[in-house]
Amino acid sequence: SKPLAGRRAFATAKTSTIFSPLDTFSSRHIGPDVHEASTMLEKLGFDSMDKFLGETVPPKIRVSPASVDSIPALSESELHARAKELAGQNKPFKSYIGMGYHCAVVPPVILRNVMENPEWYTPYTPYQPEIAQGRLESLVNYQTMVTSLTSMDIANASLLDEATAAAEGMVMAFVSTAQKKRTFLVDPGVLPQTISVLRTRAKGFGIHIVVRDPTEALSDSAVSSDLCGVLIQYPDVDGRIRDYGELTQSVHSLGGLVVCATDLLALTLLKPPGEWGADIVLGNSARFGVPAGYGGPHGAFFAVKDKLKRKMPGRLIGRSRDSTGKPAYRLALQTREQHIRREKATSNICTSQALLANMAAMYAVYHGPIGLKQIADKVHGFTQILQQSVEGFGYKSTTDAFFDTLTFDVTSAAGSADTVHSAATAAGINLRRIDDRRVGVTLDESVTPTDLVALINIFASAASVEPVSLSGLSAPETPAMPTAFKRTSGYLPHPVFNKHHSETEMLRYIHHLASKDIGLVHSMIPLGSCTMKLNSTSSMIPLTWPEFSSVHPFVPADQVQGYHAVIKELEEDLCKITGFHSASLQPNSGAAGEYAGLCVIRAYHESRGEGHRDICLIPLSAHGTNPASAVMAGLKVVSVKVLGDGNLDLVDLKTKAEQHKDKLAAFMITYPSTFGVFEHGVQDACKIIHDNGGQVYLDGANLNAQIGVTNPATCGGDVCHMNLHKTFAIPHGGGGPGVGPICVAEHLSPFLPSHFAIPTGSKAIDAVSAAPFGSASILLISWAYIKMLGGEGLANSSKLALLNANYMAHRLNGHYTLRYKNEKGKVAHELLIDLAEFEKHGLKVTDFAKRLQDYGFHPPTCSWPISTCMLIEPTESETLEEVDRFCDAMIQIRKEAEDIITGKQPKDNNLLKNAPHPMAVIALAEEDWNRPYSRKTAAYPLPWLQEKKFWPTVSRIDDAYGDLNLICDCPSVEEFES
Amino acid sequence: SKPLAGRRAFATAKTSTIFSPLDTFSSRHIGPDVHEASTMLEKLGFDSMDKFLGETVPPKIRVSPASVDSIPALSESELHARAKELAGQNKPFKSYIGMGYHCAVVPPVILRNVMENPEWYTPYTPYQPEIAQGRLESLVNYQTMVTSLTSMDIANASLLDEATAAAEGMVMAFVSTAQKKRTFLVDPGVLPQTISVLRTRAKGFGIHIVVRDPTEALSDSAVSSDLCGVLIQYPDVDGRIRDYGELTQSVHSLGGLVVCATDLLALTLLKPPGEWGADIVLGNSARFGVPAGYGGPHGAFFAVKDKLKRKMPGRLIGRSRDSTGKPAYRLALQTREQHIRREKATSNICTSQALLANMAAMYAVYHGPIGLKQIADKVHGFTQILQQSVEGFGYKSTTDAFFDTLTFDVTSAAGSADTVHSAATAAGINLRRIDDRRVGVTLDESVTPTDLVALINIFASAASVEPVSLSGLSAPETPAMPTAFKRTSGYLPHPVFNKHHSETEMLRYIHHLASKDIGLVHSMIPLGSCTMKLNSTSSMIPLTWPEFSSVHPFVPADQVQGYHAVIKELEEDLCKITGFHSASLQPNSGAAGEYAGLCVIRAYHESRGEGHRDICLIPLSAHGTNPASAVMAGLKVVSVKVLGDGNLDLVDLKTKAEQHKDKLAAFMITYPSTFGVFEHGVQDACKIIHDNGGQVYLDGANLNAQIGVTNPATCGGDVCHMNLHKTFAIPHGGGGPGVGPICVAEHLSPFLPSHFAIPTGSKAIDAVSAAPFGSASILLISWAYIKMLGGEGLANSSKLALLNANYMAHRLNGHYTLRYKNEKGKVAHELLIDLAEFEKHGLKVTDFAKRLQDYGFHPPTCSWPISTCMLIEPTESETLEEVDRFCDAMIQIRKEAEDIITGKQPKDNNLLKNAPHPMAVIALAEEDWNRPYSRKTAAYPLPWLQEKKFWPTVSRIDDAYGDLNLICDCPSVEEFES
Ligand SMILES: Cc1ncc(COP(=O)(O)O)c(C=O)c1O
Ligand SMILES: Cc1ncc(COP(=O)(O)O)c(C=O)c1O
Ligand SMILES: O=C([O-])O
Repeated sequence: SKPLAGRRAFATAKTSTIFSPLDTFSSRHIGPDVHEASTMLEKLGFDSMDKFLGETVPPKIRVSPASVDSIPALSESELHARAKELAGQNKPFKSYIGMGYHCAVVPPVILRNVMENPEWYTPYTPYQPEIAQGRLESLVNYQTMVTSLTSMDIANASLLDEATAAAEGMVMAFVSTAQKKRTFLVDPGVLPQTISVLRTRAKGFGIHIVVRDPTEALSDSAVSSDLCGVLIQYPDVDGRIRDYGELTQSVHSLGGLVVCATDLLALTLLKPPGEWGADIVLGNSARFGVPAGYGGPHGAFFAVKDKLKRKMPGRLIGRSRDSTGKPAYRLALQTREQHIRREKATSNICTSQALLANMAAMYAVYHGPIGLKQIADKVHGFTQILQQSVEGFGYKSTTDAFFDTLTFDVTSAAGSADTVHSAATAAGINLRRIDDRRVGVTLDESVTPTDLVALINIFASAASVEPVSLSGLSAPETPAMPTAFKRTSGYLPHPVFNKHHSETEMLRYIHHLASKDIGLVHSMIPLGSCTMKLNSTSSMIPLTWPEFSSVHPFVPADQVQGYHAVIKELEEDLCKITGFHSASLQPNSGAAGEYAGLCVIRAYHESRGEGHRDICLIPLSAHGTNPASAVMAGLKVVSVKVLGDGNLDLVDLKTKAEQHKDKLAAFMITYPSTFGVFEHGVQDACKIIHDNGGQVYLDGANLNAQIGVTNPATCGGDVCHMNLHKTFAIPHGGGGPGVGPICVAEHLSPFLPSHFAIPTGSKAIDAVSAAPFGSASILLISWAYIKMLGGEGLANSSKLALLNANYMAHRLNGHYTLRYKNEKGKVAHELLIDLAEFEKHGLKVTDFAKRLQDYGFHPPTCSWPISTCMLIEPTESETLEEVDRFCDAMIQIRKEAEDIITGKQPKDNNLLKNAPHPMAVIALAEEDWNRPYSRKTAAYPLPWLQEKKFWPTVSRIDDAYGDLNLICDCPSVEEFES
Repeated sequence: SKPLAGRRAFATAKTSTIFSPLDTFSSRHIGPDVHEASTMLEKLGFDSMDKFLGETVPPKIRVSPASVDSIPALSESELHARAKELAGQNKPFKSYIGMGYHCAVVPPVILRNVMENPEWYTPYTPYQPEIAQGRLESLVNYQTMVTSLTSMDIANASLLDEATAAAEGMVMAFVSTAQKKRTFLVDPGVLPQTISVLRTRAKGFGIHIVVRDPTEALSDSAVSSDLCGVLIQYPDVDGRIRDYGELTQSVHSLGGLVVCATDLLALTLLKPPGEWGADIVLGNSARFGVPAGYGGPHGAFFAVKDKLKRKMPGRLIGRSRDSTGKPAYRLALQTREQHIRREKATSNICTSQALLANMAAMYAVYHGPIGLKQIADKVHGFTQILQQSVEGFGYKSTTDAFFDTLTFDVTSAAGSADTVHSAATAAGINLRRIDDRRVGVTLDESVTPTDLVALINIFASAASVEPVSLSGLSAPETPAMPTAFKRTSGYLPHPVFNKHHSETEMLRYIHHLASKDIGLVHSMIPLGSCTMKLNSTSSMIPLTWPEFSSVHPFVPADQVQGYHAVIKELEEDLCKITGFHSASLQPNSGAAGEYAGLCVIRAYHESRGEGHRDICLIPLSAHGTNPASAVMAGLKVVSVKVLGDGNLDLVDLKTKAEQHKDKLAAFMITYPSTFGVFEHGVQDACKIIHDNGGQVYLDGANLNAQIGVTNPATCGGDVCHMNLHKTFAIPHGGGGPGVGPICVAEHLSPFLPSHFAIPTGSKAIDAVSAAPFGSASILLISWAYIKMLGGEGLANSSKLALLNANYMAHRLNGHYTLRYKNEKGKVAHELLIDLAEFEKHGLKVTDFAKRLQDYGFHPPTCSWPISTCMLIEPTESETLEEVDRFCDAMIQIRKEAEDIITGKQPKDNNLLKNAPHPMAVIALAEEDWNRPYSRKTAAYPLPWLQEKKFWPTVSRIDDAYGDLNLICDCPSVEEFES
C-alpha cells in the first residue's frame, strides 16, 4: 500500500509556510501525486523529471520556466474572491439593445441540471454514439425545434454564432452557383455584426458584398446578372417585418438563394420563412434560455431546404438503427464535413455549440408550443404597449409591423437621441444607439411590468412629460402584425415538446438523457488531440453569476470593467505562454482561430504589397480544419510530405517553399505533430518558410505538451491559435462551446480582428465573430484555470501530461505497435498506436474502439490522423490508477483479439465485432443469445467493472443505413404511439 | 393523442392578464395538467373537483379557501428577486464566535456535485438498500471517519445537532443505570446551547442536571451516589483542553458513563477521547465542509464503545452481503430504533442529517488524513499567532492549552469587553460575547492571513496600540498543547480516504456513488407518509448564496434581518395553513417537533397547576415516533384501539379518556390517519379529550392532504407539527435534513421553546435544538415553496394529491385489496393495500417491494402501519403518465405473483423471491443462470423499461447476516487489497 505522507506534495508550491493557502489548485488538477509520478518515472528508467524531459522535448526548443513563472498561483478561494471582485466591476444595467441579443430567462431546472451539471458539460462531441445517445437525442430535439419553427426541411445541430452562420449561408449560395456568381446582396436591415463578418468571409472567396435594399438592387443588372444570393433579416435590426415573398421569387428566378436570418421566438407568431420560400434560414437560438454572457457562447441555428442538405455545413444528427434493429442516433452525412473534405471543404466548422443548443432545445421541451407562444405574445404585447405609450409622448415610431423591436425618431419629443440615452443611463438602462435622431428598443422575456413602466418613463422623462404608472397601462387588443405575416401553421407537435412540462418530468428527462452519456464524471476520455482534462468546479462557478451571465455584448465599456480585466489578464497570460506579443479572443472555436490567423497573415502580406501571396503549405498529417481554413482565407493548399518516421519531410518542404517562393503565404504546422511527437526540425522548417517570404501558422491544439517547456514563438511560429476548450480547461460541452483565440508576433499585431463595438486599429481585419470577444463568458473558465495554476502549475501540468502519455506508451508496448516516437523512443503528450496488423484478421480500429466501450471507457481518437490508428491522450488530470485501468483494458482487448486471430473465437461473431454490449443485449432471452462467449465475459471482462461500469445504451450503430434513410428530427406523435 | 391547447392551464391563476408572470410555479410543481385531472376525475365518476372533494373530505371539517387565499403567489423569478432582496438584508460579518459553529469551507466539487445535486438531495432514507448503495457507502465513510478520529468502536450515521446528541448521550447514561441513578453532571465548559437542551430533555426523564466542575462535584456524595454520567467538552467552550483521564476513572468506578462532546478537526491533533476512556463521544461535524447556515442543518456525530452499541440511538449502517454473497450495505440493528420500540424507546430520532453527514464524509475523503492535519495545523498555528500578538498588546489569555479557541481577559488592555466588541463591529467582525471582562475568539479554516491581521488589529485598536502587519507575524515553533494531549495514533488509513484527492477522482467517486441511488430524478417515490414531491430548483438556489449560508447562529439580530423576515413570513404562513396562532421553527425533525409539542402541552398543564397530568393516549396505528416522543416528554402511553374499518375506536377513546380524566395530558392523532383515510370522527375525538382536560397533539405528517381543504385547528387540535421535508418540499436528502416546526393554539403560545440567543417569553420551555431556529437555512426552501404556490396553488396541490391517490386506488382495484377507505370508497392522499392474502403462497410484502425495484421504482412504505401492507402516496407532483406507469408495474407484478400461486413458477425460485435483479445477475455466465424465467423477463418485464430503467446494484440483502456479523466501517487497506 502507498505511503500516506505527502501524497500530493508534488503539486504544491516549493516554499509553503503557514501563511500559504491550503486549497491550491494544482494539487487538485494534476492527477498523479508525487509518489505516482516517481513510480512512472522509475518505470520509464528515470530518476528525475528533468532527465525525462531531456529525452522527450528537443533541447533546442526548451524555454526557461521564467517564461511563465511571472504568473502567480491563486488558491481556489482566492480565485473565488478575485472573481467576485471583478463581478462587482460589471455594472448591472438592464439592456434593451437587441441587435440579436436578449436577456434570456434560463429555467432554473435547466440552469442547475444542464448548464451547471458536469454530466452535461464534460462529455466530448458524440463521435461514439453508443455512449452518447442522450446528447444526440437532445440535439435532434434542437434540429426538430429549428425545422418546425422555421418550416424548413432540415437543420443542423448548431453553428458558432449568427454572423458566422450567415457567412456559411453566403458561401453556400456562392457554391451553389458553382462559384460562378459572385454578388451577394445584403439588406441594410441585417445586423451590423453579421455584415462585418460577411465582409471578412467574402474576401477569401472573392464574393462581392452589396449592402443595399434588395428589391431596388435587383433592378441593377450588374447585381442581377451576377447574383448568388441575398440575405435578409426577419424581423430586421430596426424591428421591421417585411414581406419577402416577391423578392424570393425574383431571386429564385435569377438562380440565387434566399438566406434569411431570423428569430425563433418571433416565428411562433410570424409566417415562417420556409412558408414563403427561403432556402436557408439561420439565427441565434440564445433567447431560448441561454444567458447573454457578454456575447456568448450561444448556439446559432441553420436550416435548409432538402435539396441543399448535402451542402449544409456543420454537424447533423440523424436517426439510424443499431445492430439489433433498435432506433439510435448518430452523426449523419459526415462526408460533408471539413475533416473529410479538407481542401475541398468550404466550411471549417468543427467544434460547435452543443451545450447551448441543448439548453435551447430543453427550453423548448420545457415550455412546449403553448408556453413559447405565451412568451411571444407577452413580449409582443409589451412592445405594443411601449409603442402606444411612447408615441403618446410625441415620439415617432418608425415601424408599424414589428414583433419585439421598435425604432423611434426622437427628435420631435426629445430633441436628440442623447437626451433619451442620458435619461436611460441615469435609470440603469441601455437602449440601442443608432444615430442622433433615432433610438432602438428591443424587449424580451425578462421584462417585467415594473421594467416596462421604467422603460416607458425614460421616454417620458426625456420628453419632460408626466411619468406613467402600471395601472395606467392596458393590454393591446390585436397584434401589430398585418394578417399576411401571421403564422397559421402549428409547430412542435412532437410528443417530446408536449410532455415534460412539470419540473419533475423535466428533471427526469434531463437526467435520463444524461445517464446515457459518458463524460469526465465517469472515466478518462483519452481522445488524442482533444485534451480532455479536469473542468474544475472553481472555474465553472463564476460563469453563472448574473454579473457575468446577464451582460449584453454591446454595452458601453464602462459597464464591463470586470469583464475587460479578465480579458486583458487572459490575453497577457496567453502571450506569456505562447511567447507572442498580442492576442485576440474573438474566434469562438479552434477552426475559427485558424481562419482568423490566416486572415491576419494575408492582411500582413497585403500591407506589404504582397497580397498576391496565396500558397499555403500544409503537411498531409494536418487536421482537416487546416486546409479548410486555408481555402476560406483564399489560400491555395499545397501538401507537404511526411517521412516514414512521422516527421515532416524537410526536403519536400524546402522544395515546395522554394518552388512557390513568390506566392508563398503561409505554412501550417501542428506542434507537437498530430502524430504525437516533438519533431526536432520544427525551427528549421519555420526558417525555410521565413526564408521564402511566408509566415508560419502554428495549430495550437497540442499546446498542452508545451507550457513552460517550450512555446510556439520559440518553435518559430508567427501566429498560433489555442483551443481554450482543450489546453485551458473549458469543458467540451458535448460538442462545444469552444474558444480559439490567436496569439501573434509583434509584426502581426496590428492586423488582429476588430469589431465595431470595440474597434482596434485601422489595419485590423474586420470581425470574425458576432461579438467583440466571441464567447466572452467562458473566457472566465480559462482565466480561472491559468490564475489558479500559476506558471509553475501550468508547467507541471504539461510535464505530467508528457509523463502520463509516455508511461502509457511504455505499458502498451509489446501489446500494440506504437507508430511513432522520437529517437529516444519517447512520445509527446499523446501516442499513436497502429492497428493495421489486425486488418488481415478482419479486425478494424472500430472493433477495438467499440469493445473499449464495454470496459466503461470512451475510446481514443480513431482513424485519425492515420486510418488504421488510435491516438491516445491521457492528460495530466488522470491518476496513475486510472491510466493503469485504461492500459489494463487495452491489454485485455488485445487478448480477446488474440482469441479471434487464433480462431478460438469466430471471425464474425466475437467480443470485438459484437461490441458494444448494452444491457438490453446482455438481458436477451435465453433463446436469443447466440454468441460463443458468456454474457459475463461480454459485460465484465475485468473484475473492477463489477464495481463500476458505464454502460452503452445501444448496440453498434449502422451509419450507412442512417445516411441512406436520412431522418433528422424526433419522433412524431404517430411514430411515438406505434 | 392529447389536445395541445391549455395543457397546464389547470394550475395557472384564474385571472391572468398580459401583466401576469408566465413563470408561475404551481404549473411546474403540480404534475397533472387540467386535461389529466379531468381524465382522472372522469375515471372516478366525477365531473368536478368539488364533487370529488365532497366524497373524500368530511364536509364538517372543510375550511373556506379564504383560510389560505391571503398568501399571494410569486412567480419563480419574483421569488428569486425577493430572496435576493432579503439576502441583501443579512450583513456579511466575519464571525469568530465559535461555540460549536464555524465558517466551513465547502470544497467546490462537493458543493456542486453533492449539495446542489438533486441526485444526492432528492432520495429518501435508504430503507431500500439495493437501490441506495451509494449513500449507504458514503454514510459508512462517515461512521468510519467518526470512529477513526474519535478512536471509538462504533458510530451512527448522524444525529440532529450536537445539543440533542448530548441529550441522547445523557439518556443513554441514565438508561445504562437501569434508570436508577438520576444525577447527570455537566461541566460548565460545555456549550450553553447544549446545557439548555439537556435541561429540557432531563425533565421528561426525571434526570437531575448538575452543572459544576466535575472533579469537585464528585467529592459531593449527593452527586457521586446518584451519578449516571458526566458530560465534558473537549476542548471546552472557552478553548481549554483538559486531561479527563482521572475523571473518567472516577466516573467509571461509580458506574457512570463519560460522555464527551468534541471537535473532529481538533482530534487530528489531540489524543482522542476513545484513548482516554470516554464511553460516548459526540459533536457537530459541520466544520467538515457544511455551511453554517445560521445554525444548520448540520450533522451531529455520535460514537460509543462496543458494549453500548445496541443502546445507541439513530441510524446505523452496516456491511452485510446480498443473496449472491456480494458485500452490500444496509441499515443495521433496526430493532434498536424508535419505530420498532415505540413506547419502550428512549429516543425518537427518525429523520437525521444524511446529506450533511455525506458532505462531511466527502470532505474527509477529499482531504484525507494528511489534508485534514494540514488544515488543523494551520488553524492551530493561526490561533497561536493570535494569542502571541494579542498578549503582546497587554491582554491576558485565560487558556494555555488550546486548539482554535481563546478567551481573553480584556480589562488590563482595553478596559472592558465592550471596547473590543465595538472595534470588532466597526471592522465587520463578530467575537464571542461572554461578559464584561472576557472576549472569546475561535478560528477556522476560512481564516486567511489578511483576516488574521484584521482580527489581531481589533485588539490593537481597542488597546490603542499600533496595528500589526502580515510581515510582522511569524509562524509558531511548537503547538500550544502539552505533549500529554498530543495525538500519537494514526487515523483514516482506509483506502477511501487516501485515493480521491484529485478533483477528477473526487468527481468520479461522487458521481459513481450517486449512480447507485434512486431519487426523484429517476421516478416516483411513492412512500406513504413521506410525501416525496418536487424539490424545485427555484427553492434550492438561494440556499447556497453566501448571504444565507455563511451566517453564524449567534450573530446579533441586526445582522440577520433577511433571515428574520423569512422566518416571520414562514411562521405566519404556517399559522394560516394550520389555523393556529403561533409557530416555532426550532425543532429540526418531525420527531423533534412531536417532542417539542408535547413539552409545550406539559408546560401548559404545569402553568395551570396540573403538572401531574401525564397520560398520553395514542392510537395503535400511530407512527412509532409518537409513543417514543411521549415517553421522552415524561408521559405514560395508553393505547387506543382502532376499529376494523380503520377508524379510531371512539368508544375506547372515550372510556380511556374518562378513566384517566385526572391525569390525562394529551392525545396524539395523525390526520388523515396513518391508514390513509379522513376519519369523520376527528372532531368528536378531540372533544372527548378536551372534555377530559387533555390537549390534542396532531401529527402533521399527512398535512399534504389538508391544505386549503381543512386544517388541524378545525379538526380540533391544539398543537401540530409539520414535516417541512414532506409537505413543504424540503428535499429528504437521502435521510435528512428535516424540519419539524410546531404550530399551536393561542393558549399554548407562551410555552413555545426559547433560546438564549433569541429569548422568547418567561413561560417558554427551554430550547429543544442547538440553534434558535434549528436548521435555519433550509427554512428558505419551504418559505419559497409556500410563496411561489400561494394559497391557491397550495390548495390545488392538496387537491391533486388527493386525486392522484384516489385514481391510483381506482386503478389498482381488482388487482390488490385496498385495506381502508371511507364510506364513499375514497382514500385520502395515500392508500394502504394489503398483501396478507399472498402469505399463504409464501409471498411477503418484501417480495413485491423488491420486485418493484426491477421496474425502476422505489417501493412504497412497506409493512407500516400494518405489517402485511404497503402504504402508497403519489403526491401532486406526479403526472398521470407516471402514476399509470407505477400502476402498470404493480399490476404486472400481480400477474407474476399469479404464476407463483398457480404453480407456473416454483415457490422458492421465481421473479419475486429472486428480486431485485442487478446487472451482475442478469450478466451471469450461462452455467450460473439457474432460474426458471428468462433474463429478459427479469430485467424488462414491461416495454418502457427498455428505454428507461433504474437498476439496483446488488441483489436482495441479507439483513440477519449483517446484524449477526456487525461491521459498520469501510474496508481497510488489507480488505481492499484482498
Ligand atoms: C489539430 C487540431 N486542429 C484544429 C482543431 C479544430 O478545433 P475546433 O474543433 O475547436 O474547431 C482540432 C480539433 O480537434 C484539432 O485537433
Ligand atoms: C406519521 C409520522 N409521524 C412522525 C414522523 C417522524 O418525522 P421525522 O422523520 O421527521 O422525525 C414520520 C416520519 O415518517 C411520520 O410518518
Ligand atoms: O421515516 C419513517 O420512519 O417513516
